[in-house]
Amino acid sequence: MPEAADEANARPGAHMSAEIAAQPQMFADLLAAHAAVAEVAARITERRPRFVLLAARGSSDHAALYAKYLTEVLLELPAGLVSASSTTLYGARPDLREVLVITVSQSGGSPDLVEVTRTARECGATTVAVTNTPHSQLNTVAELSVDVRAGAEQAVAATKTYSATLLSLYLLVDAVRGGSGAAAASVPDLASSTLESTRTGVEDAVARYRFADEIVTTGRGYSLATASEAALKLAETSYVSARSYSGADLLHGPVAAVDADTAVLAMISSGHGGGAMREVLEAVHARDADLCAIGSAARTVGASHRIEIPECAEELAPVLEVLPVQRLALGLALAKGEDPDHPRGLRKETRTR
Amino acid sequence: MPEAADEANARPGAHMSAEIAAQPQMFADLLAAHAAVAEVAARITERRPRFVLLAARGSSDHAALYAKYLTEVLLELPAGLVSASSTTLYGARPDLREVLVITVSQSGGSPDLVEVTRTARECGATTVAVTNTPHSQLNTVAELSVDVRAGAEQAVAATKTYSATLLSLYLLVDAVRGGSGAAAASVPDLASSTLESTRTGVEDAVARYRFADEIVTTGRGYSLATASEAALKLAETSYVSARSYSGADLLHGPVAAVDADTAVLAMISSGHGGGAMREVLEAVHARDADLCAIGSAARTVGASHRIEIPECAEELAPVLEVLPVQRLALGLALAKGEDPDHPRGLRKETRTR
Repeated sequence: MPEAADEANARPGAHMSAEIAAQPQMFADLLAAHAAVAEVAARITERRPRFVLLAARGSSDHAALYAKYLTEVLLELPAGLVSASSTTLYGARPDLREVLVITVSQSGGSPDLVEVTRTARECGATTVAVTNTPHSQLNTVAELSVDVRAGAEQAVAATKTYSATLLSLYLLVDAVRGGSGAAAASVPDLASSTLESTRTGVEDAVARYRFADEIVTTGRGYSLATASEAALKLAETSYVSARSYSGADLLHGPVAAVDADTAVLAMISSGHGGGAMREVLEAVHARDADLCAIGSAARTVGASHRIEIPECAEELAPVLEVLPVQRLALGLALAKGEDPDHPRGLRKETRTR
Repeated sequence: MPEAADEANARPGAHMSAEIAAQPQMFADLLAAHAAVAEVAARITERRPRFVLLAARGSSDHAALYAKYLTEVLLELPAGLVSASSTTLYGARPDLREVLVITVSQSGGSPDLVEVTRTARECGATTVAVTNTPHSQLNTVAELSVDVRAGAEQAVAATKTYSATLLSLYLLVDAVRGGSGAAAASVPDLASSTLESTRTGVEDAVARYRFADEIVTTGRGYSLATASEAALKLAETSYVSARSYSGADLLHGPVAAVDADTAVLAMISSGHGGGAMREVLEAVHARDADLCAIGSAARTVGASHRIEIPECAEELAPVLEVLPVQRLALGLALAKGEDPDHPRGLRKETRTR
């Protein structure tokens, strides 16, 4: 139906909106393909890695941050995020035997990530490409590949590729520890109910933050990834000045810049991460900032505005929390007259060295 | 002279100003104590670590980021920044044999960093505390300690403790690879000349950015640490909305939010990091942002404003680059009628879990 496609093209945010709505079914399809992830996990397990490095840029870097927590907590392996420059600018060639390098890139085409992965493999690492583009250059240089199966993404702002990457990384890490992904079985249904139950809360938040110039996002533990992704999504679609901090880091300085003109979006899901946000929210409250709590434990804190999501295992909360965040970014962009499908100055694939 | 001390207490920013000015002599004293660092380095070398983890919060986290590049490039060891929450909130106890854990904290008192370090040592890591408080709790739990010898810091905003930590980490990493710190011998003199030669440029920048609401800082490689520290220092003393991005990450989304109302502070020193900033600056320029270039190669880019620092080895540039950045944060805070010695809502030691 080319007419329908043209119409979708013409309406600002139509792609982003459709891609957000597609996520529950996409999660179900991804879970159905668990065998492919389990096969990669088996290859990783054979190698008995002792250290994990994650390489990514942009939204994928937040998925990598999520995977860093999964690795540290569920696999009890030390993990780090790769500074690509060490390889691409300074030519470092470290000894990477017993190291697992996971490169996360929806396009699989960024030259720096390709070079980092190629070099890591030459230096002895087990390399895995996690992409939405199974035949990308990254897949060619990496030894192993996980396809996040999000389908084509038309909007420049990543939504479904981000959440598909989160769930794929969860399934991969879970399979490395011998899991079957059972805890994620409810994710498709929970995602549907999240999109439905948060609709009004997001609409209210759009009205509330339409004129906010300055947004600070914050979270701890697994949900720090959601806070980071929220700031990026808001900055790249609505052009607001959005900054992200771990709850702990916020207290170490940046809280000084928080005042009554600041909107704070805090990720508060049930579990250790959300629980540790209490002292952060007290500091934010003392500075008269407007607080919007997002997550399954949002009702437990005295926030001016709440967007509640259903309960789920804490390590899966980021897969759900990001759904209303995406809708908020979409809604704010549209309210400001912008087209989040085509943010100014951005291309779908960013090529950096 | 108690009167002089009282007077210094009374004048806003007097402590911060004095502490910035004290850095050249402090660097000289630190270099003179190289033997203590070399002794710790010898203990580390005996253990032949294969991975390095760095734990820190706030300004010290930016020093840790600098040390991550030093480790990856000069030692060719894979490195990561610790997510303290994995230990303190989720109770992870990873296998850390052959891992070197360097915990950076000027106060040495943050409970989360103490717990991370104690746990790391129990899990088999070689642990090093890098602090300005030699008898802190952190020093008690770590096996080895490096004293950054900055002396008492009165201003809440860290300046001399930050730069002393940078230089200490450089000397430590250099000594681990068998170096004598010779490349740093000129740092005290270069710091003096930097403070002198950048005075006018900083004053002009204060006038220029007095009314800037939104500042983006950026850099690549070693100088990414300076960009990160600049954003924090500006946010915590001048309360401006300051965000920091690696040059590559800026191109992957946030550049969309850069426009003619954005002041961009870019770290451009000679070497690979500054060289790779060219495509970033083109994107920033295309978006009509105001660009202030700081560093030894500042004159090579078409910036609206430049703060040039003397040439030095690229890996030492962050020690010098931060000096005008500190003066800029001080100057902007004073111009706005704030007292950077006592930012609202902050204490000298932040205790997070």
